[in-house]
Amino acid sequence: MGEPVVMAEIWRGDLLESCHRGHAVVMDARGGLVAAWGDPTQIVYPRSSAKMVQALPLLRSGAAKAHGLGAKHLALACASHNGAAIHTEPVRDWLTDLGLADDDLRCGAHLPKDRTAKEALIRAGDRPCQFHNNCSGKHAGFLTLVRHLGAGPEYIEIDHPVQAAVRAAFEEACDETSPGFGIDGCSAPNFAISLAGMGRAMAGFADAREDSAEDQLVKAMIAHPDLVAGEGRACTRLMRACVGQAALKTGAEAFFVAILPEKGLGVALKIEDGSTRAAECAIAAILVTLGVLPADHPEALAFTDAPTTNWRGVQTGWMRATDVMRQMP
Amino acid sequence: MGEPVVMAEIWRGDLLESCHRGHAVVMDARGGLVAAWGDPTQIVYPRSSAKMVQALPLLRSGAAKAHGLGAKHLALACASHNGAAIHTEPVRDWLTDLGLADDDLRCGAHLPKDRTAKEALIRAGDRPCQFHNNCSGKHAGFLTLVRHLGAGPEYIEIDHPVQAAVRAAFEEACDETSPGFGIDGCSAPNFAISLAGMGRAMAGFADAREDSAEDQLVKAMIAHPDLVAGEGRACTRLMRACVGQAALKTGAEAFFVAILPEKGLGVALKIEDGSTRAAECAIAAILVTLGVLPADHPEALAFTDAPTTNWRGVQTGWMRATDVMRQMP
Repeated sequence: MGEPVVMAEIWRGDLLESCHRGHAVVMDARGGLVAAWGDPTQIVYPRSSAKMVQALPLLRSGAAKAHGLGAKHLALACASHNGAAIHTEPVRDWLTDLGLADDDLRCGAHLPKDRTAKEALIRAGDRPCQFHNNCSGKHAGFLTLVRHLGAGPEYIEIDHPVQAAVRAAFEEACDETSPGFGIDGCSAPNFAISLAGMGRAMAGFADAREDSAEDQLVKAMIAHPDLVAGEGRACTRLMRACVGQAALKTGAEAFFVAILPEKGLGVALKIEDGSTRAAECAIAAILVTLGVLPADHPEALAFTDAPTTNWRGVQTGWMRATDVMRQMP
Repeated sequence: MGEPVVMAEIWRGDLLESCHRGHAVVMDARGGLVAAWGDPTQIVYPRSSAKMVQALPLLRSGAAKAHGLGAKHLALACASHNGAAIHTEPVRDWLTDLGLADDDLRCGAHLPKDRTAKEALIRAGDRPCQFHNNCSGKHAGFLTLVRHLGAGPEYIEIDHPVQAAVRAAFEEACDETSPGFGIDGCSAPNFAISLAGMGRAMAGFADAREDSAEDQLVKAMIAHPDLVAGEGRACTRLMRACVGQAALKTGAEAFFVAILPEKGLGVALKIEDGSTRAAECAIAAILVTLGVLPADHPEALAFTDAPTTNWRGVQTGWMRATDVMRQMP
């Protein structure tokens, strides 16, 4: 323990070209450490992997119910979406229902990852709006809570009631005090915590009481894997492959969490170098190791034993999860 | 020595979020090790950092002279270019001069990195051609040698005379036997070598005899930093900032080399996780440490002490070269 563990390797021909180190934990519903690779005390920013926790005040306050939010809204509140029409249209409608417009968002604008949506914008000579931002569902959730609380418009400020509620929910879920926060890509505060703390929060979601806020969010994610990320994305593909046994969420700089309701377990992992390809590889390996994804499932193989190809489709090598990730430590 | 060294750190707020480890060497013209961070014996794929070596047979065979290639052609042969018009138009002309067409290339097609060129293709509903590939200049050089040798069209095969000549030039420059090869993104073989071997080859370029093949390539790169990469890219920006004191070339999976003619030194570095952002940060730090780039030059600061900003332009943290990279080891 302590030093990060090599979790993923990139081979070219017969030689190792690159590798990725990281830390990961599996926690149970009593807050206990079931397994660790590397250092469970590592202080991390969960980034977008915290979206389920950031959505708790939306439900607990009664705001979600008062505004008639359904499972699709909740899945979008937890999403880092591709900006395809299935994501941006419901977010736009959600803002309209609140009597708000794109300018009320504080997430900033970026081109959608979804190729069809991106190329349509470029062809039309249009610039992306804030609702195209991958975090726009989370921000629509924040704005719903703003409306419910009658709070001011700068909902991403650290001392705004929305963020105070998020911090309280986050520290309660992790059962730890956050040592500080950073500003996320979408301008909201992102609270730092130990890796074990984040895993503990995920175990709490896994073991949630029927119909609690946590339970509603997990069920919404599992019911709508296409809304949580989008076609081609690891969260969506692996949630489908786990067939209801896992809610999954990536975060920037190579964070990943898994909520396993049938096992009552939570997983949190961080690749130290911030590479998404490695976080996807490592979480898939852990899902296999924990028995919620068959090792020979095509989507497991696509992330743990992935052939790499070049611009002419020639196979150049492999990305592989290391042996240490394929068994309990 | 041995273990990779943390070379670059990504801070968010007051906390370290991610870091990158790597190996680097500085070699002199007699093939001696001047400095090392990490393990000089690490076996690496230099990827596109090998393009200057891959271009040696083009010059030594007389093919470049016979076909009237100038400094711009040579810079493009060493380039991983952005696919802007300044890159693709001369490569197209070069193919036309050879009586060849896009189909004769074997590099594969991908969208240009250059935003204007990319968006123009998307707006026109066109698909990218092989001359848009960032390696198309190298491949035009290969095809020139094919023509000169009267060799067959499959010039990227390992047993083709072009690749046999490349291997011989590579092993001679590195003064080592390559332990194997992989297929590169552009389908050409890429020969593995020790990091020290690659640094030794770069020192050979730094100390090249006037008008030798090496000397012509280094002068072409230094004369045309915009052709070697493109606007906004680290190679181009840092070569301009070093004002003739360095020829620089990146390679995929976070390789970077520097040729320092006035110092007679060669530098080679590999970030173990393959992250380009860290390779750029580390090479800039080494250029400062070796005295060819002022520490307070805006382009040095842009890579070694770079503020990170989000979608709304808010500063979220820093990417910084570590202290260990800011002094000779």
